[in-house]
Amino acid sequence: MLIIMSKTAKQSQIENIINRIEELGLKVHVSKGDVKTIIGVIGSERIITQIPLEAMHGVEKTISITSNYQLVTRDFKPENTVIDVNGVEIGGLEIAIMAGPCAVESLEQLILSAKLVKEGGAKFLRGGAYKPRTSPYSFQGLEEDGLKMLAKAREETGLKIVTEVIDSESAPIVAEYADVLQIGARNMQNFQLLKAVGKINKPVLLKRGLAATLSELLYAAEYIMNEGNYNVILCERGIRTFEDYTRNTLDLSAVAALKQISHLPVIVDPSHGTGRWKLVAPMAKAALAAGADGLIIEVHPNPEDALSDGAQSLTPENFNNLVKDCVLIAEALGRKITL
Amino acid sequence: MLIIMSKTAKQSQIENIINRIEELGLKVHVSKGDVKTIIGVIGSERIITQIPLEAMHGVEKTISITSNYQLVTRDFKPENTVIDVNGVEIGGLEIAIMAGPCAVESLEQLILSAKLVKEGGAKFLRGGAYKPRTSPYSFQGLEEDGLKMLAKAREETGLKIVTEVIDSESAPIVAEYADVLQIGARNMQNFQLLKAVGKINKPVLLKRGLAATLSELLYAAEYIMNEGNYNVILCERGIRTFEDYTRNTLDLSAVAALKQISHLPVIVDPSHGTGRWKLVAPMAKAALAAGADGLIIEVHPNPEDALSDGAQSLTPENFNNLVKDCVLIAEALGRKITL
Amino acid sequence: MLIIMSKTAKQSQIENIINRIEELGLKVHVSKGDVKTIIGVIGSERIITQIPLEAMHGVEKTISITSNYQLVTRDFKPENTVIDVNGVEIGGLEIAIMAGPCAVESLEQLILSAKLVKEGGAKFLRGGAYKPRTSPYSFQGLEEDGLKMLAKAREETGLKIVTEVIDSESAPIVAEYADVLQIGARNMQNFQLLKAVGKINKPVLLKRGLAATLSELLYAAEYIMNEGNYNVILCERGIRTFEDYTRNTLDLSAVAALKQISHLPVIVDPSHGTGRWKLVAPMAKAALAAGADGLIIEVHPNPEDALSDGAQSLTPENFNNLVKDCVLIAEALGRKITL
Amino acid sequence: MLIIMSKTAKQSQIENIINRIEELGLKVHVSKGDVKTIIGVIGSERIITQIPLEAMHGVEKTISITSNYQLVTRDFKPENTVIDVNGVEIGGLEIAIMAGPCAVESLEQLILSAKLVKEGGAKFLRGGAYKPRTSPYSFQGLEEDGLKMLAKAREETGLKIVTEVIDSESAPIVAEYADVLQIGARNMQNFQLLKAVGKINKPVLLKRGLAATLSELLYAAEYIMNEGNYNVILCERGIRTFEDYTRNTLDLSAVAALKQISHLPVIVDPSHGTGRWKLVAPMAKAALAAGADGLIIEVHPNPEDALSDGAQSLTPENFNNLVKDCVLIAEALGRKITL
Repeated sequence: MLIIMSKTAKQSQIENIINRIEELGLKVHVSKGDVKTIIGVIGSERIITQIPLEAMHGVEKTISITSNYQLVTRDFKPENTVIDVNGVEIGGLEIAIMAGPCAVESLEQLILSAKLVKEGGAKFLRGGAYKPRTSPYSFQGLEEDGLKMLAKAREETGLKIVTEVIDSESAPIVAEYADVLQIGARNMQNFQLLKAVGKINKPVLLKRGLAATLSELLYAAEYIMNEGNYNVILCERGIRTFEDYTRNTLDLSAVAALKQISHLPVIVDPSHGTGRWKLVAPMAKAALAAGADGLIIEVHPNPEDALSDGAQSLTPENFNNLVKDCVLIAEALGRKITL
Repeated sequence: MLIIMSKTAKQSQIENIINRIEELGLKVHVSKGDVKTIIGVIGSERIITQIPLEAMHGVEKTISITSNYQLVTRDFKPENTVIDVNGVEIGGLEIAIMAGPCAVESLEQLILSAKLVKEGGAKFLRGGAYKPRTSPYSFQGLEEDGLKMLAKAREETGLKIVTEVIDSESAPIVAEYADVLQIGARNMQNFQLLKAVGKINKPVLLKRGLAATLSELLYAAEYIMNEGNYNVILCERGIRTFEDYTRNTLDLSAVAALKQISHLPVIVDPSHGTGRWKLVAPMAKAALAAGADGLIIEVHPNPEDALSDGAQSLTPENFNNLVKDCVLIAEALGRKITL
Repeated sequence: MLIIMSKTAKQSQIENIINRIEELGLKVHVSKGDVKTIIGVIGSERIITQIPLEAMHGVEKTISITSNYQLVTRDFKPENTVIDVNGVEIGGLEIAIMAGPCAVESLEQLILSAKLVKEGGAKFLRGGAYKPRTSPYSFQGLEEDGLKMLAKAREETGLKIVTEVIDSESAPIVAEYADVLQIGARNMQNFQLLKAVGKINKPVLLKRGLAATLSELLYAAEYIMNEGNYNVILCERGIRTFEDYTRNTLDLSAVAALKQISHLPVIVDPSHGTGRWKLVAPMAKAALAAGADGLIIEVHPNPEDALSDGAQSLTPENFNNLVKDCVLIAEALGRKITL
Repeated sequence: MLIIMSKTAKQSQIENIINRIEELGLKVHVSKGDVKTIIGVIGSERIITQIPLEAMHGVEKTISITSNYQLVTRDFKPENTVIDVNGVEIGGLEIAIMAGPCAVESLEQLILSAKLVKEGGAKFLRGGAYKPRTSPYSFQGLEEDGLKMLAKAREETGLKIVTEVIDSESAPIVAEYADVLQIGARNMQNFQLLKAVGKINKPVLLKRGLAATLSELLYAAEYIMNEGNYNVILCERGIRTFEDYTRNTLDLSAVAALKQISHLPVIVDPSHGTGRWKLVAPMAKAALAAGADGLIIEVHPNPEDALSDGAQSLTPENFNNLVKDCVLIAEALGRKITL
């Protein structure tokens, strides 16, 4: 922590701050410039936050030198985290392909979807049983019935199930059926929910919030890991910007950056990230090239009948072609997709 | 709903869509242009959302003509909603002044704060007992102990209590102590929480999310009202933009717009909205001029000792001056602040 | 300037950097923490930019402590700059009211507009003769003919003329007719144009770019002042964000901040800032309360016939009412609008 | 064009609008819904913009159905535009690699850079002789001396020269030396400059503005093409968002979208797009996967000595590795990079 004193700071104010810091058992290092004095604090930034430095007389601003991440960074764990989802790995050489409809609509639709995406190369079936929706008047999901359908689809296909959990009350029941618990973008800073899934022994797929910085995403992962669950998968799904051609702006530099900062696997959702099915395939390939460990893609057996997000869903045929293209990209990157 | 068909749409595709719409009992109105055909759908847009129009062959895009708001707009209730908080009104002629520390830290601090902000002109005491924090390692609030301190401060000063509720589990206990339940920006689309406070018979102060559109804020209010609780206060608290001089960008045109669209009271939080105490007073005055029904302001008896957000807290003296200035602005606007 | 060395920086790398800095005649102050070493550079930051510190081995990041503003800040000139526009002041007690159509369309329209806005309380007539337009196929302005019409309107009404200059070639001719040269938002970082108007002896109204930070706006003003023209008026006109209800997001905290940082007058354009005429009046009042020294407002004698931006233009009647409301706000703020 | 009338629009207002449109020789198609009337306008949207529809009584909003692009879209020219830059193609199967220092600093540095990037696989040398800089006190380029050095570097290496033109005055002299004229992000809507380069018979590399929508970028290209110069290369270089880990947010979905909408070649600048050299290689690969026709990359023989942007420059060694990786990606995509 560096404390930049204002040009007009008095000596007594500087001493006051030094005293407050030293009372906490920390050391300081004072540097007097031509214009401003800078106080360097040596020791944990977690302790120094007990003093409201920026509100103290004479302080212009403070600058944090070290982050407070404990568990998410490569400082904590240099090698990649590889998560074993009941026999299928995420974060290793193999690219994880997750696909399926946005929402679970019926058993028939789901089983058909599952078979089609499995044929196309998916190892995970995605599909929402609990759906967070902007309007209270929109379809909110089949809830436990939907979970049962997902379990049935797993039984029939062997695909692992990824599905969203929207509150801590329903977390246990979702965990009963799911292989991977998804936290949606709107819940990325629902800290109670993060703590709840941190206590469950299931991998968590954590989607980046619509306006969340990388730092906030990493702290959200830190919430989960801090409760004991180290199996966290980060997911870039687009951020909100002024551009309105796409539904969101898919931030692939976030993928490259997260892979450098963190040991956790990172996957990308090009369907929500763009909101336009014609952009899904190029952005899926670009995501892999940026370093993603997997993809989560909306596929619907018949997009014309989807109850939500139809316009961003791929047909099974388009999905098959996308995976084939991705196989070539994965090889060029020294990774693989096993069909 | 208008459906814009692509240039290359075939007649059979146009007819297919018309059939699907008519099967739902809706009427269509087809308009053939030089280049494109447009299908107008007459009837409820809630019904039409059952068809995934944008994914259907030949459809270029759809355009929504009417919104699906039911309860929040002036179409539903033309006159202003005035909320009675145990004898103090929000949304009438009188400007509601809410003030206090960001977090409840101790009984002494809170009682002192309460007395000082009451002297300054506040009718509501704000202060968090449950604190949603970006990092799991930051101070998370005194929880029920904090609530008890708030109740004690009310007892001593008569101020009404505004405090945050962070999940549906703790909502009942917060409601036991609070006069107004605050939903924080990060929870604006925590739909389970919105439903939970919608079932509680207490006014709700709903903060706009960091990247929420006005439409999403209004739908969040709609979630609460749809459960039966019509006492919702909207709160603008800054949105996330590229500008980094301020912590957030306080969007006062949102205040003017919300007052035109909705009958609900709108208040402004210039403390979080700017993150800089020197900007709080001018933005508080600007908020009133834009049409705000109230202000929620961080005041700390001694900002140098605040456990969080110290840099945006006002001293009691600065708060007093701010309210005095606001009295003059309120008069110029034909409103009032009773000291 | 502070240089934060990475955790893994070697002693030789630290010494290399110190040597490079000392070669430039600057002093350093080294502070070794538990984890990282920090090198403070004492002396001008303009000199240190000759070294590409962030690319040097062992450097994690650099932090600028002082800005390089020379002329725009209150450090340079503590008191407000008051600009005399041929007898009418901007930046003093009196609020400057500028109004008129977006584009000059015809002499009749302009003379009528000028008379109407003068009646309503304006002291300045705005109107574009050169129009920067997104599409090459949109109306691009009447150019010199438009300038002549503006001069004629000044002759008939005594209003001062504010009009846009779009390139350095046409700057001299615009300067011949105008009282205030406007630099549009899209040209805020057209540095050649900034230098050109910096050499002309006329006040410049500098609009903030669509995605310009406050710092960039101040540096743009610095470009003009650095050429010798100290009569710069800053103008907030809305920034680009994700919110699409308004055309732009009017950032009034920028107004409050600019008034604190800089001695230059600041005005606000609520017409372009919101893009909706119903929001212009509340945002004009809010702008004054935030500290603005003036307003620039689109008024059209008959908005239904305007060639551009009709939807954000006020009728003369609405403009009159707006000014009357602003008179009351100005008084409450200890300022004035002379009708 | 669709005109949505407000709920409360009167029949006389509807008729007034229809009359105004028909006076222009256009046809209308009126559709009366339960709640609102919609007027469809059949014919050119360029004609209809003469009427300020949104300001007319009874109009709620207007919706544009067709764009006004004339030249940039695949409607105008379905096949890819391949630009021949004195024997080297951009937009064909071969990926165009442009590399070099941000600014021309000296002849030795430039010749060395040119030789190194040529060895690494570049066919184009980039380097600024005229530098638009935020602060007037920053290094502004060597101007014509820099151009001469670029010409000398071309002579020695055969690389084609890409360099920035910052105003219409200096455009002819830059055109004398350059093979490709670059328009920088801050000048994307400097319409005078766009017109100027539109009249010069040299390819133009047009960078997307910091907050420009795809539509605005395409219209900027339209300005150039409308003057007769059809050799325009679009360049994505990052947009401004709330995320501050990267200098900008590189929007690769823009690349995929532009390739679908337009026939023009699209290249990507991952150096400015991320501002961090460690992210340049993954984002270069991702750009190709998203469909880019080329890359423009900052390389400096010794980044530690670069006068600007050092932190985002690659070393020649890193550049060589990047190109080698890109060769594999290009092959996987059915394209090629000839070394």
